Amino acid sequence: MQRSVYSFGNGRADGTRDMKTKLGGKGANLAEMTNLGVPVPPGFTIAADQCMAYLADRQVADALREEVAAALSQLEEASGKRFGDAANPLLVSVRSGAAVSMPGMMETILNLGLNDHTVAGLAAASSNPRFAWDSYRRFVQMYGDVVMGVPIHRFEQLLATKRLVTGAASDAELSAEALQSLVGEYHQLVHAVTGRDFPHDPQVQLWGAIEAVWQSWTLKKAVDYRRVNGIAHDLGTAVNIVAMVFGNMGDDSGTGVAFTRDPSTGEHRFYGEFLVNAQGEDVVAGIRTPLPIEEMAQRLPGAYEQLLETQHRLEHHFRDMQDIEFTVERGKLYLLQTRTGKRTTAAALRIALDMVDEGLITPRDAVRRIQPAQLDQVLHRVIAATAHATPIAVGLPASPGAASGMAVFDPDVAEQRAQRGEQVVLVREETTPEDFHGIVAARAVLTARGGMTSHAAVVARGMGKCAIVGCTALEISHEQRSMKVGDVTVTEGEWLTLDGGTGRVFLGDLPTQPSEVMRVINGAVAPEDAPSYQRFHRLMAWADADRRLRVRANADTPRDARVARNFGAEGIGLCRTEHMFFEGDRITAMREMIVARDEGGRRRALEKLLPMQRADFEGIFQAMDGLPVTIRLLDPPLHEFLPHGGEESSLLAASLGLSRQELQRVVSALRETNPMLGHRGCRLGIVYPEITEMQARAIFEAAVRAQRRGIDVQPEIMVPLVSDVSELRHQRAIIERAAEQVMGVMGDQVQYLVGTMIELPRAALTADEIAAEADFFSFGTNDLTQTTFGLSRDDAGRFLPHYLDRGLLPDDPFQVLDTKGVGKLIRLAVRDGRDTTPGLKVGICGEHGGDPRSVTFCHQSGFDYVSCSPFRVPVARLAAAHAALAS
Amino acid sequence: MQRSVYSFGNGRADGTRDMKTKLGGKGANLAEMTNLGVPVPPGFTIAADQCMAYLADRQVADALREEVAAALSQLEEASGKRFGDAANPLLVSVRSGAAVSMPGMMETILNLGLNDHTVAGLAAASSNPRFAWDSYRRFVQMYGDVVMGVPIHRFEQLLATKRLVTGAASDAELSAEALQSLVGEYHQLVHAVTGRDFPHDPQVQLWGAIEAVWQSWTLKKAVDYRRVNGIAHDLGTAVNIVAMVFGNMGDDSGTGVAFTRDPSTGEHRFYGEFLVNAQGEDVVAGIRTPLPIEEMAQRLPGAYEQLLETQHRLEHHFRDMQDIEFTVERGKLYLLQTRTGKRTTAAALRIALDMVDEGLITPRDAVRRIQPAQLDQVLHRVIAATAHATPIAVGLPASPGAASGMAVFDPDVAEQRAQRGEQVVLVREETTPEDFHGIVAARAVLTARGGMTSHAAVVARGMGKCAIVGCTALEISHEQRSMKVGDVTVTEGEWLTLDGGTGRVFLGDLPTQPSEVMRVINGAVAPEDAPSYQRFHRLMAWADADRRLRVRANADTPRDARVARNFGAEGIGLCRTEHMFFEGDRITAMREMIVARDEGGRRRALEKLLPMQRADFEGIFQAMDGLPVTIRLLDPPLHEFLPHGGEESSLLAASLGLSRQELQRVVSALRETNPMLGHRGCRLGIVYPEITEMQARAIFEAAVRAQRRGIDVQPEIMVPLVSDVSELRHQRAIIERAAEQVMGVMGDQVQYLVGTMIELPRAALTADEIAAEADFFSFGTNDLTQTTFGLSRDDAGRFLPHYLDRGLLPDDPFQVLDTKGVGKLIRLAVRDGRDTTPGLKVGICGEHGGDPRSVTFCHQSGFDYVSCSPFRVPVARLAAAHAALAS
Repeated sequence: MQRSVYSFGNGRADGTRDMKTKLGGKGANLAEMTNLGVPVPPGFTIAADQCMAYLADRQVADALREEVAAALSQLEEASGKRFGDAANPLLVSVRSGAAVSMPGMMETILNLGLNDHTVAGLAAASSNPRFAWDSYRRFVQMYGDVVMGVPIHRFEQLLATKRLVTGAASDAELSAEALQSLVGEYHQLVHAVTGRDFPHDPQVQLWGAIEAVWQSWTLKKAVDYRRVNGIAHDLGTAVNIVAMVFGNMGDDSGTGVAFTRDPSTGEHRFYGEFLVNAQGEDVVAGIRTPLPIEEMAQRLPGAYEQLLETQHRLEHHFRDMQDIEFTVERGKLYLLQTRTGKRTTAAALRIALDMVDEGLITPRDAVRRIQPAQLDQVLHRVIAATAHATPIAVGLPASPGAASGMAVFDPDVAEQRAQRGEQVVLVREETTPEDFHGIVAARAVLTARGGMTSHAAVVARGMGKCAIVGCTALEISHEQRSMKVGDVTVTEGEWLTLDGGTGRVFLGDLPTQPSEVMRVINGAVAPEDAPSYQRFHRLMAWADADRRLRVRANADTPRDARVARNFGAEGIGLCRTEHMFFEGDRITAMREMIVARDEGGRRRALEKLLPMQRADFEGIFQAMDGLPVTIRLLDPPLHEFLPHGGEESSLLAASLGLSRQELQRVVSALRETNPMLGHRGCRLGIVYPEITEMQARAIFEAAVRAQRRGIDVQPEIMVPLVSDVSELRHQRAIIERAAEQVMGVMGDQVQYLVGTMIELPRAALTADEIAAEADFFSFGTNDLTQTTFGLSRDDAGRFLPHYLDRGLLPDDPFQVLDTKGVGKLIRLAVRDGRDTTPGLKVGICGEHGGDPRSVTFCHQSGFDYVSCSPFRVPVARLAAAHAALAS
Repeated sequence: MQRSVYSFGNGRADGTRDMKTKLGGKGANLAEMTNLGVPVPPGFTIAADQCMAYLADRQVADALREEVAAALSQLEEASGKRFGDAANPLLVSVRSGAAVSMPGMMETILNLGLNDHTVAGLAAASSNPRFAWDSYRRFVQMYGDVVMGVPIHRFEQLLATKRLVTGAASDAELSAEALQSLVGEYHQLVHAVTGRDFPHDPQVQLWGAIEAVWQSWTLKKAVDYRRVNGIAHDLGTAVNIVAMVFGNMGDDSGTGVAFTRDPSTGEHRFYGEFLVNAQGEDVVAGIRTPLPIEEMAQRLPGAYEQLLETQHRLEHHFRDMQDIEFTVERGKLYLLQTRTGKRTTAAALRIALDMVDEGLITPRDAVRRIQPAQLDQVLHRVIAATAHATPIAVGLPASPGAASGMAVFDPDVAEQRAQRGEQVVLVREETTPEDFHGIVAARAVLTARGGMTSHAAVVARGMGKCAIVGCTALEISHEQRSMKVGDVTVTEGEWLTLDGGTGRVFLGDLPTQPSEVMRVINGAVAPEDAPSYQRFHRLMAWADADRRLRVRANADTPRDARVARNFGAEGIGLCRTEHMFFEGDRITAMREMIVARDEGGRRRALEKLLPMQRADFEGIFQAMDGLPVTIRLLDPPLHEFLPHGGEESSLLAASLGLSRQELQRVVSALRETNPMLGHRGCRLGIVYPEITEMQARAIFEAAVRAQRRGIDVQPEIMVPLVSDVSELRHQRAIIERAAEQVMGVMGDQVQYLVGTMIELPRAALTADEIAAEADFFSFGTNDLTQTTFGLSRDDAGRFLPHYLDRGLLPDDPFQVLDTKGVGKLIRLAVRDGRDTTPGLKVGICGEHGGDPRSVTFCHQSGFDYVSCSPFRVPVARLAAAHAALAS
């Protein structure tokens, strides 16, 4: 028979640290500490699988009851006390402890074993009747609430009344007698609310508490926490039953919490706080102000010496910074818990690197210890720790960083004010490509609509600019240049501060502080002056040595390309040529092309665009010298380049020599019911081959020019939105013809690849055919997710949050790749594509390329590279290393 | 070695009728006729694979040259003439002949072998120098044009000049001498244009003609014809070289074409026309008026007797109505061609059934002979054969039938005029669900935008109402209540006639005639008074006996359900509940529901809708007594139910007690960027469970009421737009709860199924999971096609025609199911779904359910049923029989 109960005490334990799945983190570490010889109160742990068994059967197995009884006997022996013994009662704490830490999610009961008889024994043993009755009072309250379902405020009402009638200013002034009478009132309350007596039998108390812990696994807040943190629902929680020790037995007693290193900075010093003559909950409750741990040397010198030695031993043993809880009972130290301590990213980096230098861990361990998503923290400006403010609204954290600026509601105003040197935050219902100049000008972007992959989010992330989107509480009035949130109205020019890492919006100009890593990347300080940069760099070098996946960046300009390269990008995986068409004169030439009546007119306008594109490409090739650059041909529907009414339309009509009506007719004709599924991608280049031809010419001319300047150019031309191999064949022929022409005229040869995005289900389904015409596949997982789910990322805001709240989907599929559905298509396409073309180069250029879990999927699916926003490159590098180390 | 040349003549042939792929239809039948002893001029056929070999190599293989030389010797022997012999020249025709008939697509050359020497021999043999020189003149002209590329009008100029200078009123008045001098001028013209002499060597002539035939396989018109008709491009064409016979050798000669039965009515009588002393091209050219075939009994009695006997023999031999070409040379009959004759659907039905009765073919043969798509012709009103008019525009033939009416440009006006008893045609840019009442009121619908599966097309097909959509030549002015097509302007009240079967739009009120089948179905005449109905019915009964697939109909109202049942529907595969919300008061209650501020408000509005839905469902259950009815829960985005501005908005705001601004805010908030991928389908029922609950209650209440009335109800509730099993589980729970409640309260049990539409790629990809919660799958191939291709059917009009024109896609995937991509998903889903749930019921309810090729796919993929518009039910029944017979 599989054992289900694991005892520990008196220097030996049944369990070890490796049994976390069975014993939970707390139970495994209690066992481990016991085996190490660290002083731990004796106790036992009921394995987590018993939780799931109970939740399935709704009853306790007889075998388990027997095992618990045996463990309890052993505990009585170890503690020298007896459960329910009126003279020398054994009291226990009952606490949950899952394999993965779920702080605050599960319930705890202390002082279990007290009743009208044993309370006397406790009073005698402690020589402190008030302490004994107060412990009993607390136990009844806690048990009545958690196990028996009596509302906590009903207990608190009785407590308040008692203070009133006795004239006590605080609970501490209540006498033993008052507390005794209060316990009597508590018992009556329990009976009145539940119709049952408060159980006096400690066995009944114990099983009630155990079952309550098990049931708390299914509490909504626990289920939600697991869902948000990706913890499996079928783990269950272990239950720890531990002999009580008391830090409130006098001035030779105390309790505290400490970290083996500073959790904020990572500095190697013992860090914590403690209280003399107090119980653990007093530290947490904040009624008394704890003392710095160093002062314990004066107040509890012997215990402090032992604690210092113990914390050092624990850190060495667990080879990681520990977060410990301890109690001193009459001069004797007890460790109640040890666990890996939470820390900031800066601290995590410092601790990991220090520990490598100390010989505690290997570089690979250090890489494993930094979670990729954490890196964001060291790459972005943050709100200074000194700032205290309450957010007025919370939206989706679309692009991290912190920024302050004056609210403006119009991209033109944003640009004007920015040109005057003002800091602005652009606030929009949602953004469109026409707002691009406003986004460039703003410090941060805030939108009321749109999801994590909406236009504003994608553009801001690409620029590493703070953005909060889908902040549905905002009511924006474009006419009045203001927004309303609840009762607060913010008009143009008022200051806002945004925290893009958390989605919080604050009123006013809060202080922010820059990322040291970014200050180096941006050249503001030298690497040697920035210790946190050095640590970052050292760790990333180790990560790079471990990973197999290459990491590229999505970048559309030479500037973005340089930033990406500084972040360690090994190429550009997606250069979106359309963004090049929005600046200055270009949009005018682009619009001329769109409204042209025939191919001749289009060609004349395209001729104007060609030199501009060529210059952009040349700059990008230069920035990425020696690395591949994937250039996607024009993708968005043409109507995105046209104004939709207003003054701009009149100006445009005039500049194009059209009447407003004629222009309006063009705009209307291009209007689409579902632009996402409309005339875009390679469908443009197929109906207007001259567009593809111009773009290909610009790429090849730029490549030859750059190559003549000694630059190693590696262009990879990508055809978007292919659904059938015939489309790729058609576009490839145009590209190859342009290559021959350009190279023929210019007399130099340039090597290049032609490939396609796989961003439609049909492309994935017919990958075997498409691969015959493709040198590479790049999965456009944004659109592939939209079409596979039939879900517009621009419109999902009205129902997707509802789905996530109710657990109908585990994650937002635009943030974390849906490996089940979309992933199935991807695996199919990779397999079929490589069946046709062995060695086919495969990458991803959707937003998922910077998501750690999605990077893992790409590694497992045999991708050659991932590509993501420049600021996500370090995240992806680290995630790729994690994936390689895990496999 | 594989032989490539097949001779025939003198009663024996190398080929047979079974060698159509090799010899083409014409060549195989010439061989077959020869073997039958039917008089056929001797000749030989070059196999079609030689065409593909030549097109690949661009040269003639030596082996083939040897075979042709041998066959030519044999032909000389059989004909008793010699190729290039000045005294007794062998002349031949060179004609293409592919395996599948491609009328008018390939070129023909007659009189080959004539040159300045052999023309004398022909003159002597025919005792008619003028005939000989005219033949020579025609040959040079035809060969110069087709083989040597001299523009035909250059020859015609010379001919006209010759008439002018000789004073001839017509070509027939040109003397032998004039023709001789004209031939000389022709030779000079050829040299002037091509720089080469006209070839006098008959061998050179022959190979030039053969190569020209092969090359004509790649002419644009041939490629287009194959594409439109689904003929493979790699078949190639055979070449037939046949000894010339002349019907223009005097009054004992003649030529004609005939059918073994009447191709219009199917009547069993010999039917055709002939000309005395004429060549085949004269019949075609229409210069002389041919005589009815019966008169040949007087004019060429011997040949006529032989022809009657021969046509009878051919029909018996080929067991189908034949279309024959013949020539009588000096009293001797020659058959030049026989092939299966084209015929109207009415004729096809009559001929097939008569032949069954005559014992010529089996009922199964009869079923095979009727193409499912043909059935449309007998189910719809057509423009009377007596009407002659030229269309002013041609659009997409969205819904067959012919109808006339006064043009109206507004659905309200359509309704008003229809109520006054006027016939109207609704003309719109495109239609929306708000136009529904206008479509109901109109005789026909015409739109400028939209594809075959646009709103107007789908709704009209569902009603069996004539519709033409995507008629891009129309410029519609809603303000001026008029439309412009080229120079023609049509204002409100002017008459139009539409032919929905061909997409043609005519000015005026053309006479139309009803379908006899429909007159029976609609109860206007009794079946026994309608012979064509009886034939239709008999054939469909045979088809039903052969098919395995069940056929259901898409029907939203009791009336549609009854029509569908009359067409043989075996259930309803798709009842769209949203259409029920557009009539009268319902739209108001629906709008109240949409603008409600909270669940309470929504529930109050839903309570008003419930009795209306219940009544609809009860009516449908009654109409479908004993058959399954699949009801789809609310599917379209809510904004489709709201007005988009104008007077209606003001009225609505007033009736709902809202300000126009408030209403506008609701409308704006519901606006979506990509409604196809937005908040619709089960996403509505998940965010607003009360909607699903109301619909389920209405269904179950209706079912119980109907059952109490003795009706056998079989409701199948279908959840739309599922992408994950969690959605189906969520909706299923609501439906089951509603079922329990209703049956509990009403006290009666009703059996029902709950299933889902598979209309998103992710649903297909996760079918294994979804099947665990589904009693049935119904493939919604419209949306599945849209999402798999990333192609909005509303927007595809701007580029899809371009794709089809250029062969980038073989078919419009909204008309013919894309078996490669979409079909792959479907097969995957059927397999995975049935792995989870063996015996899972599988059907299709997209527009493809009525497309014969798609029905074949459904049969092959193991579907249980297809569902389509009521008017497509007979088509689907027949297609299902064809699929079963083919497998």
